[in-house]
Order: sequence, then structure tokens, then C-alpha cells
Amino acid sequence: MTNENKIRMQLQCPMPKLDFDVITLGHGSGGTLTNKLLDCGVFDILSNNFLDKRHDGAFLNMNGQMAFSTDSFLVSPIFFPGGNIGEIAVNGTVNDLAVCGAQPKYLSLSFIIEEGLKMTEFWEVLLAIRSACEEANVKIVTGDTKVVEKGKGDKIFINTSGVGAIHPKANIDEGNIKKGDKIIVSGNIATHGMSIMSIREGLDFDTTIESDTTNLNHTISQLLDEYGENIHLLKDPTRGGVATVLKEIAESSKFGIDLFENNLPIDEQVGSACELLGLDPLYVANEGLFISFVDASIADSFLDSLKQLDKGKNAQMIGTVVEEHPKQVILESSIGGKRVVNMLPGEQLPRIC
Amino acid sequence: MTNENKIRMQLQCPMPKLDFDVITLGHGSGGTLTNKLLDCGVFDILSNNFLDKRHDGAFLNMNGQMAFSTDSFLVSPIFFPGGNIGEIAVNGTVNDLAVCGAQPKYLSLSFIIEEGLKMTEFWEVLLAIRSACEEANVKIVTGDTKVVEKGKGDKIFINTSGVGAIHPKANIDEGNIKKGDKIIVSGNIATHGMSIMSIREGLDFDTTIESDTTNLNHTISQLLDEYGENIHLLKDPTRGGVATVLKEIAESSKFGIDLFENNLPIDEQVGSACELLGLDPLYVANEGLFISFVDASIADSFLDSLKQLDKGKNAQMIGTVVEEHPKQVILESSIGGKRVVNMLPGEQLPRIC
Repeated sequence: MTNENKIRMQLQCPMPKLDFDVITLGHGSGGTLTNKLLDCGVFDILSNNFLDKRHDGAFLNMNGQMAFSTDSFLVSPIFFPGGNIGEIAVNGTVNDLAVCGAQPKYLSLSFIIEEGLKMTEFWEVLLAIRSACEEANVKIVTGDTKVVEKGKGDKIFINTSGVGAIHPKANIDEGNIKKGDKIIVSGNIATHGMSIMSIREGLDFDTTIESDTTNLNHTISQLLDEYGENIHLLKDPTRGGVATVLKEIAESSKFGIDLFENNLPIDEQVGSACELLGLDPLYVANEGLFISFVDASIADSFLDSLKQLDKGKNAQMIGTVVEEHPKQVILESSIGGKRVVNMLPGEQLPRIC
Repeated sequence: MTNENKIRMQLQCPMPKLDFDVITLGHGSGGTLTNKLLDCGVFDILSNNFLDKRHDGAFLNMNGQMAFSTDSFLVSPIFFPGGNIGEIAVNGTVNDLAVCGAQPKYLSLSFIIEEGLKMTEFWEVLLAIRSACEEANVKIVTGDTKVVEKGKGDKIFINTSGVGAIHPKANIDEGNIKKGDKIIVSGNIATHGMSIMSIREGLDFDTTIESDTTNLNHTISQLLDEYGENIHLLKDPTRGGVATVLKEIAESSKFGIDLFENNLPIDEQVGSACELLGLDPLYVANEGLFISFVDASIADSFLDSLKQLDKGKNAQMIGTVVEEHPKQVILESSIGGKRVVNMLPGEQLPRIC
């Protein structure tokens, strides 16, 4: 069976027979060919009441405190173990909203396609977008499709922006963290970055390292139900990794952070890959991971609850907020030494998300 | 005075002395260099209460019916007579919201920068974004900055997404158009497209053709105040031009459209440029233009009101909704002949917005 036919089998609605195999500049013209491209997948695969109107924008009813976030995704390669750029584009914005304490509802979706992208590749990305939306329970309500000349892009870049309603019990703000707060990471670190690097560098392990891309909104929502304002701050440590995010938080606060290397959860194979490539896992990008700053009084219970959840089973308490060494992150290493942790200085892993 | 110094003079706040002239891959890492890039302009130039929080998303209070829209902008060249990609990126999404009948309020802003972009060029784009936001009375509340390798992008691509509150008197819907509706264009057609094409093709005229990029939200809001539900449909004819938009509307309705070539407003020089390049102005992209479908009973008054407004002084009634030839747009030419108008078939003018 051809790849086109395999993908067609996953589509619910019959689509017009393709008379093109690759996307051309004309598909970004805004004219007949753009309509044809959209009719050959986009509107079928992503169909819902909002998008079906095909207006310049979507009409939504929103009430109360909302969060609004945006992200552009340029991961290379666009297909990697555990996912593709479509999933990352949905989960990335879903998670940015979730760490604001919001329940994501509506996303926009904007493609910048390089001329020559195979239609079957575009379909695979669209199918990943659909399933990621279903899993996160969000809807793509408005979009845009543009095409650039060969050599002026790289297969496909995707922007998603999103809105969501703030959880009634959420009060997430950097100003809320205080001395004694416990810092909890929801799972193994460095997995996404090492998944991408392993294929880029052709590393060969017993099993493939799969990206941890996933939505975090349901998990965070359950924790907010239970712990509300005792969750002081949430962050997703994507580009720059855990180290960069913690250093940013310390810098914008009046506190310091103590970090315990022994407690950092990491998959053995991911750790080996980091060693092989000379990368510090603290700086490697994550996708399906979040860091919580929680009140010391509920920290143990929070960690227990998180460990019960599918996406938190590898969670660990990795640090504490302290008054000493304000604005500094100090790592206590596995052999007992201490070192200052700074932000990622340059570009360790370009195009990781 | 150097270009850097000229631009620094336009900035209100003193910024750190630059120790880099061009943007590198490291500026997209999410680490120290990304923070440096953002501190050397982005946060200073675009500063407001929402953005200053530097969170993963912005917290907004929204109530009622909202519109939500997105657009990615890839215009080439990024600087052109009458503006740059920064203005287009703001005005484009502002206008998409405006033609939904919404008053735009909050925008997201996402950059995909090609490694090697000069910092002075980036600043010029940022300053254009700021002034376009001020003029449209919208705020950039959240953003993202990514960098791609040389040859994997083209200087800078910008995505903006936006939300706005639906005007209380607005009822904009394709289902509202009816027989007899008058079709009014707010100004001269084909100006933006020919501005870009003139510099690409090195055409030499007495005066430069300047892009018509501008916001339309205040103009549309005034018309909605006065004519409310008698405005049945609004559209901005960007990519694909006036012809493509009208054909799309006819196709999704049960009506036909009669279009009168004699009434199409066009600047003389723009008309000459179209002739020289063999382009039909009906298919050339516009930026600061909108098309209104209004009830016949108020059409003359609407046109008079629009002509009083700065952005409507060249407005014309260009067509009528008819029951004959459903789903077809028929142009009555200046010499009396009739021809069918279809959508732009392929890519007439790539990278026009």
C-alpha cells in the first residue's frame, strides 16, 4: 500500500483525489490552489463548528480570567521518535497555558510551508495535530497557511496560539514563591532533547529514545483541584532545560534555589546519550514536563498525588527555595560538591522545538 | 550618525550597549543570549503591564463574544515603501479581527528570525510594531522568539494572533447577505501588491508607490456604530485580491455578484504598474482595504459616511448581490462586455504579505 493510501485510511471523510504530490508556491496564493490545499485535508481533518465557518477569525464566548499564549515550532527533523512537529505544536501551547493555571480551550494554527513539502508528510502532521487536540481537549478554531520558496524555510514551521480559562483555584505568580517552597519536577528530564539529538547524531541504543511530548493540562488541573493556592508557581522547562528555567525564576525573585543532583530523575539511556555527546541534562530541552513550586506544608502530599498520575509517575522533589544566596541556583552534586548553575550560555541544541 | 545611533534615538529607554551586531542561533536558545536579545529591545520597545510580567502567557480579563484570529507574515522584502513587515504583522491581524466585527485588544507576537539578521533591522521592525500597536490601540501581551540557521528562513517571519470584543451592534456573517445588497470597497485597490512588485521589479515611476498598510478597526467601528446590522458582511481582500474574495463569498452563498469595472477605484500609477507587469488589479493583494456588503436601504448613506472618513475617502460602490447566476461573479467591463471572474488560479505574487 502506498503511503498516501495508508494515510487516507486514517482519514474519516473521503477527500478529493489529489492531483498534486507536493505543496507548491501557488498553494500559498490565497486563491484556487490554497482552497484546494485546505480542502484536501486541513478542513476535513481538523473539522469543528468553529473552523468550519472559514471566517477570517473565530467567534468565541469567553468569560472571566483567561490566559493567552503563543509559540512557533521549528523542530528539525519534523518527524522524530515519539511524535512529529504537529504534536509538539499543539502540546507546546497547551502546556504554556496549563502552567499559567489555565485550562486550554481554543487554539489558532498557522503553517509556514516550504515549497516541495510532500502532501503525505503534511497529512501526517495534520493527523498528529488532530489527535493531540483530542487528547488535550482543545479545538483549532482559526488558522492560516502560507508557502515560502525552496531554501527560504525548512519543510514546515507551525505557530499555535491559544486561550484558556484560568482554573478557579489557581493563583500562579512568580511573586508567590517563598522561603521553604519545595521544587518538584514531574518526570524524567532531558528526554525530548536527547530523542532529537540521538537521531540527528545517529546514536544507536538498545531501544530508541522517544520524545516525552504530551499535554499536561489534565494533570495540572487535577493538582489545582486538590492543592489550589498552595501551588505557587508552575513552569515547563522546554528550551534551555531545567537549569535555565530555575535560574530565570531565581533572578526575578529575591530568593535563591538549592538543587539536589541526586534527586534529578533521568532515564538511564538518556543519561548515557548525554554523556556520549558531552551534554549536561540540566540544559537539555523537555516537552512533557513541568516544574512546581509548592508550599512546604503540602509538598509531600503533592508529590504523592503527582506520582499516582500517569504523567507524574517519575516525579521527584529536586530542590528548595532558600533565603541564602539570593538570585543564585546552587547545585549540590551527587558527590557532595556545590556549584553555581547559570542559564544556558549559547545554543546547545538548535531547533529542538 | 550610525544607523544604530539613529534607531537608539527613537527608543525611549536607554538600552544595554550591544555586544552583537547580528542575531545568531544562540539568540534562539532560550538561555542567556535569548534573554539578552529580548533585553536589547523587545521588552523595552513593546513594554506594557501584560508583557512586562514575562510569563509563559498573559493573563487577560475577557467577557462576552470575542473574535480570535491568526496570521503569519512573510513579506519580501521586509522593508518596502510605506512600511515594513512589522506594521503589516500588526495591521493584518487587527484587520482580520475588525472584519469579524470585533474591536481588537490583545495581540501575541512570534518571531522566526534567520541567523544573520542585523540588530538594527530587527529594531526597525520592532519600532514599526510599536507604532502600529499605538495607532490601532492594541497591546502585545505575549510572545515568542526563535532563530533558524542561515538558508532555512528569510530574514524574519512574524506571526501575530489576536483577540477582540465583538462590537455590540455587529452581526457579520456570510449567511446575512441578500439580494440587492450593495458592495462597497473602502479605497483604491491593488496598492500594496504593486508597491511590493515595483521594488522587486525595479520599476521607476515619478513617485514611489507606497503600501496602503494601515489599521481599519477604528473606521469599521464608527461604521458599526452608525449602521449596525445593516452591515451584512465585511472582508479584507489581502492575498488573492478583490476578485478572489468576492468569488469565495459568492461560492459559499446562493447568490451571484455583479461587479462594475468602471467603479473600481485605482490610483493611476498603480494602474500603469499593473499594465506594465501584465497583472490584473482585481487579483493584486491589498492591505488597508475592506469590502462591505450592506443593505441596499442604507448603501448611499453608508458610502457617504465612509467617504468622510480618512481611510474611506476613495470608497466606491463596486457591485451588487443578485439572484441571477448564483455562485458566479460577473464583471461588466468598462467597454460594456461581461466576463466571469474566478479566483486567482495560481501564485501571481508570492510573499506579498
